[in-house]
Amino acid sequence: MEPTKILLSEQEIPTCWYNVLPDLPEPLPPLLHPQTKEPTRLPPPLFPRALDEQEFSQERTIDIPDEIMAIYKLWRPTPLIRAYRLEKALDTPARIYYKYEGVSPAGSHKLNTAVAQAYYNKKEGYKRLATETGAGQWGSALAMGCRFFDLECKVYMVKVSYYQKPYRRVLMETWGASVTPSPSQETQSGRAILSQDPESSGSLGIAISEAVEDAATHDDTMYSLGSVLNHVLLHQTVVGQEAKKQLEKVDAYPDIIVGCIGGGSNFAGVFLPFIPDKLSTKRDLRIICVEPEACPSLTKGPYTWDYGDVAGLAPIVKMYTLGHTFVPPKIHAGGLRYHGMAPIICHLYKLGIVEAKAVHQNPVFESAVLFARTEGIPPAPEPAHAVKVAIDEALACKESGEKKTILLALSGHGHFDLQAYDEYLAGRLEDYEYPREMVERALADLPRVE
Amino acid sequence: MEPTKILLSEQEIPTCWYNVLPDLPEPLPPLLHPQTKEPTRLPPPLFPRALDEQEFSQERTIDIPDEIMAIYKLWRPTPLIRAYRLEKALDTPARIYYKYEGVSPAGSHKLNTAVAQAYYNKKEGYKRLATETGAGQWGSALAMGCRFFDLECKVYMVKVSYYQKPYRRVLMETWGASVTPSPSQETQSGRAILSQDPESSGSLGIAISEAVEDAATHDDTMYSLGSVLNHVLLHQTVVGQEAKKQLEKVDAYPDIIVGCIGGGSNFAGVFLPFIPDKLSTKRDLRIICVEPEACPSLTKGPYTWDYGDVAGLAPIVKMYTLGHTFVPPKIHAGGLRYHGMAPIICHLYKLGIVEAKAVHQNPVFESAVLFARTEGIPPAPEPAHAVKVAIDEALACKESGEKKTILLALSGHGHFDLQAYDEYLAGRLEDYEYPREMVERALADLPRVE
Repeated sequence: MEPTKILLSEQEIPTCWYNVLPDLPEPLPPLLHPQTKEPTRLPPPLFPRALDEQEFSQERTIDIPDEIMAIYKLWRPTPLIRAYRLEKALDTPARIYYKYEGVSPAGSHKLNTAVAQAYYNKKEGYKRLATETGAGQWGSALAMGCRFFDLECKVYMVKVSYYQKPYRRVLMETWGASVTPSPSQETQSGRAILSQDPESSGSLGIAISEAVEDAATHDDTMYSLGSVLNHVLLHQTVVGQEAKKQLEKVDAYPDIIVGCIGGGSNFAGVFLPFIPDKLSTKRDLRIICVEPEACPSLTKGPYTWDYGDVAGLAPIVKMYTLGHTFVPPKIHAGGLRYHGMAPIICHLYKLGIVEAKAVHQNPVFESAVLFARTEGIPPAPEPAHAVKVAIDEALACKESGEKKTILLALSGHGHFDLQAYDEYLAGRLEDYEYPREMVERALADLPRVE
Repeated sequence: MEPTKILLSEQEIPTCWYNVLPDLPEPLPPLLHPQTKEPTRLPPPLFPRALDEQEFSQERTIDIPDEIMAIYKLWRPTPLIRAYRLEKALDTPARIYYKYEGVSPAGSHKLNTAVAQAYYNKKEGYKRLATETGAGQWGSALAMGCRFFDLECKVYMVKVSYYQKPYRRVLMETWGASVTPSPSQETQSGRAILSQDPESSGSLGIAISEAVEDAATHDDTMYSLGSVLNHVLLHQTVVGQEAKKQLEKVDAYPDIIVGCIGGGSNFAGVFLPFIPDKLSTKRDLRIICVEPEACPSLTKGPYTWDYGDVAGLAPIVKMYTLGHTFVPPKIHAGGLRYHGMAPIICHLYKLGIVEAKAVHQNPVFESAVLFARTEGIPPAPEPAHAVKVAIDEALACKESGEKKTILLALSGHGHFDLQAYDEYLAGRLEDYEYPREMVERALADLPRVE
């Protein structure tokens, strides 16, 4: 019998990141400057040179520096686990494998890029990184990344989460970060909001504005983003490369890869290394992006030009979007509440290379509880969306009798998200219909691009 | 260079538990019946036959059944990690390795015995297990163990924790356990307490009484204990056997093994497999048991006969004890707040085979934060006690120039314990002096044994 956990040795950690850009059948649309609307690089006062180069690189592989590798080795390679007990509970002939990133010290995949971003900023002489965080997943990863390269870390945390999720704040502080509830008195944008609404509970858009302003107004400080951009997706490709090697060890190849998408970096990290196979051999590989019904960029949004951030300070990107002023309903999967989507994923979706599904919160948690009761791990609310669709596909195999191989991207555990499980188990969890009118209003705010 | 993580394959998971009883230089004192004070087996209406046999077995090895092994494989073998970054921060010539049990779905070593106990109860036809939990570490492990063998699980959770640590309760419920705040109206002992004090916030002692009564009054229900007893320590020996194999892979052998002790199962699991070497080869191996100053059974208590539980319902055991009526100060390491200690550890301490140290809470958290900032993982408050002493020993090596090898038992992560980190970082964490007078009062309540 196949092993339950398919492990790799440290020597088998991929030595480079995989860059999909040169393999795309059509080039990615450019980034546009938010004011001039002309093609642009990453805003130079915000990102170090190395990350800007990676953002547009045409090299298929980019070597992982030794200093980053030394830190990856603390938790990488992560296990690929055969979900025997879930398969049995579903009585499916499908084989389900999950790639589990929750073994990292921060509990998710986010560290893969946080460590890399901290390294390049340190190397170019910067002293301090500023970022925003909602529920705290990204902020805690960057806090650890900065600590490991002796950088200061400043996190603007959405005020309502700062007070409702104190444990995530404490985790960031344990790693030495300075965490400020946003809106704050520390930036002009924060003060402007507070002067209008002293009781503002904040939003990710406001927190981004504060972090960007902090970086723009401090010579020693750069800005750091946890998803969406090409270089962030690039750093996550260690995950998919490992998964591919692990499947090879048991002579398996996926028929279906399934993952959740918010900004897109977790799932892209898993599936991008499979794209060359799909393009070159025309393999019958389905790549299913799962998003929440409450924030369904791919399945409901138009493919158009929009700002990457709520305030309109970030570059304009071509993407499936619900409009940068759209504020999604308060689902528990905070990491999936983004109005747009990584340009690479949008491009692949437009080209028909990946597909997308939207799911509701209650069936997602029903699947998450089944997963916890069979495989042990309570998934974070974000990857629980992918668990739901993996289960649906496995049940479809039961109907059809097909022995498909399903690869599930399990990006993190739900230890900090148990309130959501509590609401589900108590029957108090809300589903949110697609907020069509709010999206229509937000789409009226799209930037005009010739 | 040695790898950072020393991994084993699934085939290298130990196939049996190691039983130290036949290797002891002198036999362990018997258990005494709480009423008759005559030597006794485990109370038969509470424990299944197989566990009672294991409790007194003279076989050096006991095979791990396939059904248990299949579940161990979900997270075992756990990694042994070389603490390169901590060593560098301390500038020590010592080599520090930590055996990390926090990768289990419940986040600690407790699952190793929870799964085994659930299996044997199921095999003997019982339908339901009752137990108590303080902060929830043990309760959540047993909840998962029971779910995996289709047993009902009833957890009496100390009321103050039930309301203060809702996440642990939710984790248990996610795995399908029924969790009741104790004291409850569901048992006579609970009702008796509530009639005297309707506002009682509960205690571990009361919760044990409720769980034992529940098991004693339901034919289909047995009782389950998460530490102290021989069979519980036995199940944990998978940890130390793995660590030994992992060290062999890098040609290392410990000079010092360090771990925290509350009931003793975590640390015994790590060091017991090294005992035969120590006894037969007279190896110069130091085994350091670390306990809190607030509850220092080994370092301050007499070696005498005492009840295993607060209510005096459990067998009387020969142990280092602070008295079964002693209620330790409210340190954050809830798992170290036990008045006594596993009889096996007490016996080895009496024989001079292991040593003990007591440490204060603030230096413990200072060490825990250093560990988190170098190795990434924020340790749970309990193993943070061991981290403190491992660091002390590494610094002693720096003084002496000795290149000692230190094996640290890191039994779990602190994701559910970040409130303690918050208090430490804010300078609000209290130290507690050894409560001498309270212990003296409690020692006056010891049972009289001829």
